[in-house]
Order: sequence, then structure tokens, then C-alpha cells
Amino acid sequence: MGIQAEKIRERITELARYTATPGNGVTRFPFTEESRQAGNLIGNWMREAGLSVRLDDTGSIIGRLEGENPGTVMIGSHMDSVKNGGAYDGAAGVICAIAAAEELQASGFRPCYSLEVIATNDEEGSRFRSGLFSPRAMLGQLGPEDLRDLRDDDGISAYEAMRRFGLDPEKTGRNVRKDIAAFLEIHIEQGPVLEAAGREIGIVDTIAGIRRYLVTVRGRADHVGTTPMHLRRDALSGACRIIAQLTERAEKSPPAVATVGSLNVEPNIINIVPAKAEFTADLRAPSDPMLQALHEGLMDDCRSICSELGLEYEVRSLLDTGPVPMDRRITDIFEEICNDRGYSHMHLVSGAGHDAMVFGAKVPAAMLFVPSTGGRSHCPEEHSEERILAMAAGIAADTMIKINQDRIFP
Amino acid sequence: MGIQAEKIRERITELARYTATPGNGVTRFPFTEESRQAGNLIGNWMREAGLSVRLDDTGSIIGRLEGENPGTVMIGSHMDSVKNGGAYDGAAGVICAIAAAEELQASGFRPCYSLEVIATNDEEGSRFRSGLFSPRAMLGQLGPEDLRDLRDDDGISAYEAMRRFGLDPEKTGRNVRKDIAAFLEIHIEQGPVLEAAGREIGIVDTIAGIRRYLVTVRGRADHVGTTPMHLRRDALSGACRIIAQLTERAEKSPPAVATVGSLNVEPNIINIVPAKAEFTADLRAPSDPMLQALHEGLMDDCRSICSELGLEYEVRSLLDTGPVPMDRRITDIFEEICNDRGYSHMHLVSGAGHDAMVFGAKVPAAMLFVPSTGGRSHCPEEHSEERILAMAAGIAADTMIKINQDRIFP
Repeated sequence: MGIQAEKIRERITELARYTATPGNGVTRFPFTEESRQAGNLIGNWMREAGLSVRLDDTGSIIGRLEGENPGTVMIGSHMDSVKNGGAYDGAAGVICAIAAAEELQASGFRPCYSLEVIATNDEEGSRFRSGLFSPRAMLGQLGPEDLRDLRDDDGISAYEAMRRFGLDPEKTGRNVRKDIAAFLEIHIEQGPVLEAAGREIGIVDTIAGIRRYLVTVRGRADHVGTTPMHLRRDALSGACRIIAQLTERAEKSPPAVATVGSLNVEPNIINIVPAKAEFTADLRAPSDPMLQALHEGLMDDCRSICSELGLEYEVRSLLDTGPVPMDRRITDIFEEICNDRGYSHMHLVSGAGHDAMVFGAKVPAAMLFVPSTGGRSHCPEEHSEERILAMAAGIAADTMIKINQDRIFP
Repeated sequence: MGIQAEKIRERITELARYTATPGNGVTRFPFTEESRQAGNLIGNWMREAGLSVRLDDTGSIIGRLEGENPGTVMIGSHMDSVKNGGAYDGAAGVICAIAAAEELQASGFRPCYSLEVIATNDEEGSRFRSGLFSPRAMLGQLGPEDLRDLRDDDGISAYEAMRRFGLDPEKTGRNVRKDIAAFLEIHIEQGPVLEAAGREIGIVDTIAGIRRYLVTVRGRADHVGTTPMHLRRDALSGACRIIAQLTERAEKSPPAVATVGSLNVEPNIINIVPAKAEFTADLRAPSDPMLQALHEGLMDDCRSICSELGLEYEVRSLLDTGPVPMDRRITDIFEEICNDRGYSHMHLVSGAGHDAMVFGAKVPAAMLFVPSTGGRSHCPEEHSEERILAMAAGIAADTMIKINQDRIFP
């Protein structure tokens, strides 16, 4: 393992110590003591890399290297985690961004755009069931009123949690950043695609759009012995036909995916025909027409199956975010560098949401994925090879140089 | 409404007063104070009908009219109820049996076989999750050791509950009845078939066999955004395909029925591919080959669908009771009487279990069904027309006369 990879490994291990669940993965929720300690450590690393460090309104740690011209290129990822998550999701991207800055400093790089290395906060949304706090605040999409509405499991609002942490929640969303020229993020893939394809680097073309629905199918509770099939209105039988169709539709239209993750039945008793079945549907695709096709398929199936079985249904939209294309100029640079360095790579769609999704809707953004061992993520077993993380950090440093040379942003 | 029907209505209303849940349907569990009071009332009615009344080992109320020859023809149903059930399930059959005895006495009938009117106990099994206590005990299929194993929600064993009620649980199953020549039961249909067909009387040909299974499908939890469809092992998607197939199979083979009443998903979270889906399957059919065909269909679907989707599965049998045919000689008499009296009638299969199912496996047994309004049962709204209940009581009385005239049992 190279020196850079060794350093990345040490830092990932060190950062993973700041967890609310020692021995059971990384649990680092925003505005907690473990988050503060992790932020201090990250700030120290940034200072060692020659960056001037500050905390922003949502508690992001930002290390800055001033450039000669206006405009800031940001490189980073998030420092918070899910409950009982791994040491790589978010953290690896932060540590790679610092490594990239160190590489740039060591090479005597003098930026034309300012460089900011950022560890964003509350990307996962595990504490307040929201997430993506830092980019939303930076772009004026999150304010004090939102923070008051969001509460954690103990009933503490995000507003109050930030206040107790020493931040001023009233400032959230007030200091809109107009200077961001581009945002680059290195992240673990969190899926099995790169590993299955045997590639080292994933260049994200698009972050998939997500539509989420809550589908409620209503029938009638009946005695399972005394009600003939043709006189039943079996809500679960209907729901199962809809779900089977939905997953078969998605199987036929890669890279789109459709998932029914939760299903609840009432009364859920062995000898009563189900009166109600309620399920969630999560549809993801890299283009609006693909999303729309899945959505229409689901609506068609609900309509025809429920009509055939005498059921009523209701579809409630829970979430609707469009696909976010990554910046083609930056992904072309990624591609060129991978080719120059001889890194095996492939283009893919990110099915998961990331900070780069919020940034990418407003400013040029791009992401590099590093393979996840076994495709596992959001669990203590989460792992990526430090050798490849070091490669990704190198690509980010080279990309910064290239962006500065070509002055591709105004 | 005729005098007989009016009397049945009054008695149903009066008996329904003995409930643990006044204002919310009839809840009359065995070996409770409300059960004792209901039994006292039933005993009084039996005495008024000229029967000599006794309590048997499981707390059944039996009113007897001694015949000249050996052999007893029993007519009756159960006096216990489910939780928040209706006033007709069981009770209507007991009251009709008493009405039949009154009619026989009024006509000066002198039985050759002894006549017993019976209100059985703990048919439903709602208290101890078992049921059919009285016929099982009478036929030596239930003993003190079984009673010790069964417990209610408060942890009280059936053994202890019987002891506290004043019964001697050690006697259960010891006094095997060898004298039962036949068992007749009048019961509400608890389903929509008679009403949908516009018939007054249902003649039960067979009580369906029941097979119950617990099917566990295991896949792998994955991130719903980052795992392509072809690399998933989605347990719920597989379970839904199996359930859709099963219910479609049953739809094609009436009068068989198949129901998945309960389904539980793990982890049951919107953004995680389900790792496990566990469901119950309840299959009912009037013949063993039909049951076997449904069972084999289920097993085939589990095998092929799980193999295709990379899932593991396990099928556990929870219950397996064969179909019980009713006695053809008695159902022929029912048919003849319906034709003579001009009652509209049809033959059907009972999908629900009844005391007649336990008796029918050992001695000649038969059942008459009366339509359930709206097919509803096991709920406070349960209702059947007293006019038709009175008709059923008349059929039972005529059947008793015919059985005695023809001496069809040895």
C-alpha cells in the first residue's frame, strides 16, 4: 500500500472512533459531542494541509486556500453517518478531499479559483428524517422555520439542537453562497456495480430522480373459510399483484429501479381476508421519461388490478426529485485523467442521493465513486480499498489543476 | 313474523345480554360468569321444553328426552362466542334446537332414539386458542393433559379455568359417548353464498379440509438506490409473486379457497430492499385431491419463483385437517323436507370448522345453514332472519321424526 493510501486508512480508522455506538459501527449524528470531536479532528487535518479553517452556519468544517480570481471550487463530502453505519460513507470523501489538498499544496499549486475542502453536516438525515442540510443552507433552501419543524426521536428540534451545539440557527440559509464555481465529491458507491464489473473508478453521469409513493389498497375483511374467491375483496392479494407487476416492470428497464420496502396488512390475521394493505414504492431512474414510465405503469396497475378485484386504492406522493445530471466538462476531465493514469473505470448512475445532487441542480457538480466491498453500505461491515480511495484523491487533485488551467468556469 | 320466529328473536336478544362487552357485541368466553348465566338461561328453556337438563364434563348444557331404544340423536350448536362477535353464531343453533324440541313435544312425538338438545362449550377457541372442546371430550380426543397446556391471555390454563368454574377437569375425555347415533347442527352461514344465490336454506355436503402453512422467504437487505434490479434478492417481491399465483390458482378452482391473511416484512423500511417476508397461507377445499393440488401449486411456485430470484424459502405446516363429508342419509332427508315445504335451498360446502366436523369424522352428522345478512359474521352486526331460523328448526324437528320412523341408524 502506498504512503497516501496508508494515511487514508489511518485517518478513516481514527475518525471512526467518534461514534455513539462503539463496537457497533459508526453512529455520528449531527450536533452531538461525537460530531464535534470528529469536526475538530477534521479541522486539524485541514490546518496541517495549510488550509484556513472555519465552521459554517450548519456546522460544516471548511478549509480554504485563497485563489487569485473570484469563484470557489469545493471538494468534499459529509461527516455525519446513519445509525450503526460504516467508517467510509461520507468520511472517506472528506479524507480524500483533504488528501487532494495536501497533494496540491505539495506540488506548489497556486489556485486561480479558491479551493475549499468541506466536511458537510447532516447529509444523511438520520437524526431529523430530513438531510442534505449544508448544501440546502448554502443555497438558501433551508431556513430557521424548517429547523423548528424537524424533531429527533427525543423530541428535540433541529433548531434547538443547533443552538445547544453553539450555532445560531437564525443564520441558517441567510448567507447564500454565490461564489461556488463547482462542487466535486468522492464517495463510496454503496452498491455492487463497480465490484461486479471489476472497475476501480465510477464516474457518475447522473444522480437518479426519486419518486416515492404510499399506496393504500382497501378491500373488505371476510371469513377466510366462508367467503368464495369471487365474492372477496382481498386487499393483500391486490397489493401483491401490483407489487409483482411493478418490480417486473423495473427489471425490464435498467438502470431504473423500483422497490417496495415496506408493506403493512390489516388486520393481519391468518383467518381473516385482509381489509387493507399499505405499501411504499420507491422509483429511481436517470431520466424524467423513465421515471414517468414507471409511475404510469404503477398507476395503470393500481387502476386495472383494483378494478378487477373490486378494491379501492389511493396513491399519495411522498417525494419527487428530478434527476440531476453531473457537469459534463468535469466528468470529461475525470475520464481523461483515468485514461492517462490507466485506471479502470466506468460511467454509472447514482441511485442514492448525495450533497452533489443539491449542488448539481444549481452549480456544476461531479462525483467519483469508489467500489464498495460486497456492495455493502450503511452497516459496520462497510469497506472500500484505501488504494482506490488514494487514486480518487489523485484524480480530484488533477481535476482541480485542470479546472484552473483551462479556467472552464466564468 | 310467525310466533315461532318471534320467540327465536326474543331468545336471541335475551341470550346476547350475557356478554363481557356490553354495547360492543357478544364476547362470551367459556368458563366465565357470563357463560354460566347464559348456560342457566339455556337450561331453563330446555326444562320448559320438557327436557331433563344436565351439565357435561366440559360445561355443555344437555337437555334429554329419553327414547325407547338405545342410541341418541343430538341436535345443537355452541354457546360460546368470539371476542366482540354477534348474537347468532352458535346461539342461533342452540335456540333453534330447543325450538325443534318444543315442536316435537307439542306434536306428541315419542322418540325411539333418545333426543338430546345440546349447547356445546368452547367451540370457537377464542380464549385458549384451541376450540371444539365438547365434541373432542365426548369422543375421547381431549384430556386433562391438553387442558393444562392451553392458557388464556392472563396465563390461566384451561384446566384451572374449568376447576374454578366448578367442573372437574380430570374427568375430561374419560366419559366417552358411545351412544351418539347422529349429530345435527343448525348454524348461520357466516358467508355470502346463500344471500347471493337468494336461497333460504343451505344443506352442507362437506366441511372443507384446511391446510395452513407459514411460508418464510429470505433474501438480502440492500440499498434501494444503489442495487440494480438484477443484483437484488428482494424477499418481498418474491413473496408477492407467490401470493399472486396462489390466489389466482384458487380463483380457478372453486369452491376451493386460498388466503394469505398475514404478511410481515423485515426490515420493512422504505429505502431498504426487504431481507425477509413471512406469510401465512390458509387453503380450504371439500376434497383431498383439491387440497393437494393447491398445496402442490404453492410448493411449485415457491420453488420456481425463489429459484429465479435467488431467494431461500421454508414452508412450515401449521394445520392439516381432512375434509369431513356430512351423512348423505340425513342430507337427503333435509332435501326432501325442503322440497315438501317449498323452501328454496342449495347444497354447499362449509369452509368454516364446526362441532359437526369433529362429530362427523366419527358418527353420522349433518348441518343446515341459514343466510347471514351481508355475509357478515364474528362482528356485532352479525344477523340472520328469524323467519328462516324458524324454518330451519322445523326442518330439524321433521328430520328427527323421519330418522325415528325410518330407524336409519343401527
